[in-house]
Amino acid sequence: MRIIEEANREAVRRLFDGDPVLVDVAPAAELIPSLGERMLLHAGPPIAWERMCGPMRGAVAGAVVFEGWAPDLEAAEALARSGAVAFRPNHDFGAVGPMTGMTTRSMPLMVVENRRFGNRAYCALNEGLGKVMRFGGNDAEVLARLAWLRDVLGPALGEALRASGGIALKPLIARGLAMGDEMHQRNVACTSLFLRQIAPWLARTVSDRERLADILAFIGGNDQFFLNIAMAMGKALTDPARSIEGSSVVTAMCRNGTDFGIRVSGTGDTWFVAPVEMPQGLYFPGFSEADANPDMGDSAIVETVGLGGFAMAAAPAVVGFVGAGSAADAAVFTRSMSEITVAENPEWTIPSLDFAGVPTGIDVRLVVETGIAPAINTGIAHKKPGIGQVGAGVVRAPMACFTQAVRALAERLGVT
Amino acid sequence: MRIIEEANREAVRRLFDGDPVLVDVAPAAELIPSLGERMLLHAGPPIAWERMCGPMRGAVAGAVVFEGWAPDLEAAEALARSGAVAFRPNHDFGAVGPMTGMTTRSMPLMVVENRRFGNRAYCALNEGLGKVMRFGGNDAEVLARLAWLRDVLGPALGEALRASGGIALKPLIARGLAMGDEMHQRNVACTSLFLRQIAPWLARTVSDRERLADILAFIGGNDQFFLNIAMAMGKALTDPARSIEGSSVVTAMCRNGTDFGIRVSGTGDTWFVAPVEMPQGLYFPGFSEADANPDMGDSAIVETVGLGGFAMAAAPAVVGFVGAGSAADAAVFTRSMSEITVAENPEWTIPSLDFAGVPTGIDVRLVVETGIAPAINTGIAHKKPGIGQVGAGVVRAPMACFTQAVRALAERLGVT
Repeated sequence: MRIIEEANREAVRRLFDGDPVLVDVAPAAELIPSLGERMLLHAGPPIAWERMCGPMRGAVAGAVVFEGWAPDLEAAEALARSGAVAFRPNHDFGAVGPMTGMTTRSMPLMVVENRRFGNRAYCALNEGLGKVMRFGGNDAEVLARLAWLRDVLGPALGEALRASGGIALKPLIARGLAMGDEMHQRNVACTSLFLRQIAPWLARTVSDRERLADILAFIGGNDQFFLNIAMAMGKALTDPARSIEGSSVVTAMCRNGTDFGIRVSGTGDTWFVAPVEMPQGLYFPGFSEADANPDMGDSAIVETVGLGGFAMAAAPAVVGFVGAGSAADAAVFTRSMSEITVAENPEWTIPSLDFAGVPTGIDVRLVVETGIAPAINTGIAHKKPGIGQVGAGVVRAPMACFTQAVRALAERLGVT
Repeated sequence: MRIIEEANREAVRRLFDGDPVLVDVAPAAELIPSLGERMLLHAGPPIAWERMCGPMRGAVAGAVVFEGWAPDLEAAEALARSGAVAFRPNHDFGAVGPMTGMTTRSMPLMVVENRRFGNRAYCALNEGLGKVMRFGGNDAEVLARLAWLRDVLGPALGEALRASGGIALKPLIARGLAMGDEMHQRNVACTSLFLRQIAPWLARTVSDRERLADILAFIGGNDQFFLNIAMAMGKALTDPARSIEGSSVVTAMCRNGTDFGIRVSGTGDTWFVAPVEMPQGLYFPGFSEADANPDMGDSAIVETVGLGGFAMAAAPAVVGFVGAGSAADAAVFTRSMSEITVAENPEWTIPSLDFAGVPTGIDVRLVVETGIAPAINTGIAHKKPGIGQVGAGVVRAPMACFTQAVRALAERLGVT
């Protein structure tokens, strides 16, 4: 239908016109005033404690202790179960979070401003690898690291970013795609490019040299540091494309470890929800699929803007890490994602595909017609609370989300 | 012949067994005590003032002023012409230098130690882009930058490297190849990876914050900073493979802007020399091949160890920069270099070729038999002194060097 084609062109125009700039880091309570006491934001569509998976519950308990709402994990879990903690999706507050996606008042959030449209989006700082809250970790080591992010890294990075005038992300991503990143499971290039831009500003703003060395070593020692920046960018880019009447383009994909949810431009903020699937991937030594929690996190926002699984051809080295075949298979993922998207990004191109743009603007109609579900590169959490990451893989968005969306869009447009 | 095959296996074994570590930066006079007053090291095989090309003469004049041997460029040129300055190749002093390759007493040199074999190699610090001495620049701006390298960056980087215990280069190159670098005309990944490793050490050792910020910005703002590190590494890797009786493997390729010279393991330090060729490439706006000086620099040492033009498949984005066709042509360069080399590096692999190793160990016999000359990615200098870089391209090593080498080797082995 012509109204849909036009609406989709407008949606993609807004995605491509965006000018995302990382401008600040500040406490969540300051950036999101409505984020109240005993309110906790999580990844994915809405979910109550009763239906939360193991790692999400582990992270919630840890976050409750971190905020001082309970003295220990046991008390925290009892508090959460009692209904005294309000659970809300990050997406409803302009935010996103990887894996469990915990966002609470005292946590520092990075701010990406879309300078073309004036909107802002938020994401917490990446904690590094190993036992971390985003994978359900919640012990003293995890909380101590979060305290360091809150007390040291967050304020320092905020000051450096404000002094720098902001880091433009569009050209940074363009370079990263020519350097083997797909910005979901591989962010080593963008992390390094980000560090080299911010390092002089950190040198000017952090007076304690040992503290400065720690900050530089933390960012430089964490290849996935940029993931959370890419996520905030994805949210900042997609928000202006919401609620375009008639558009069948996906504006958000996210998972809470139990449900997968998508939003479509033409149906506003309605969630279309289905059970999450299990990633196909590779497990760290000592772990197997029997330990794995199904798909989780707001990070699929990067696939929503054409990165991650959609940009796999840019990152042949990631294919081995996520167990998706040989390097030659990388291009196959990107090409098949072209079949369910409405455009190629003219500024984000892939050298090995002779500079074809990343496939962008998932059309729910094309997903249903072709039977090709979006491919998402993802980390895999242990299904029990408190353990952490056990592997990485590729997962598909459940087809049922897209069939529901097509039906809802058809009803809204008066098509039978 | 069996003796040649065995000798070549040994040569390549030494190349692959090397463990190059960037350990220090110190003044050339300290590292190379035989580098006397009014002695100047240059790129390529030996050459006298009379046969030097324009940019080499320009750089010599600048270096003479920089060392204080003459008060201005005119007097410097007169001094050089008078025979009062001794010109010697970098290669004879364990050193290498890009393009004109100036090395004089007061210049800070980076030190790469090959920990497997105990040898060391040196290269000056990269000056950045634009008007620089390596491209024949010699004005006040060029000399002021060299003074900053001597007085600020060199000592700071030396102290940071000593504190760090050294930066292992083999794994860094391996990562860089998965991030689109070929380490000759594209070093953005390795420069960024190097910066993130050294930044915390710089933070600990440089007490002045504004100075620290300048240093971080200089390294981070110069995508080619790593080139000179890769060159010193190439020299440190190839030196142990010199003088293996019977080996037909190339141990050095270099150019002084007039002559191209190669050394072959089985013939020791003999230079096989032929006139340099003109790169085929792309020119910066306002320049053309009419402005170009032919091929120059010791940087072809990176091709000698399997990088640069030999690793083009790792760097599809560089193909456009050097005007060597479309991204798809990148793999063609690497595959054709496989035809003139005796091995693939098991640790330096190229994701897009399903992790095939970079072709390594140029066999002069294969070059002559196939008629395929080594391909070198190179910068292009203006042919007049004092101007600087005008483009980048791909150049071939002259076949005559290889036919001479085959003949000399055959004579030495008593083959007719």
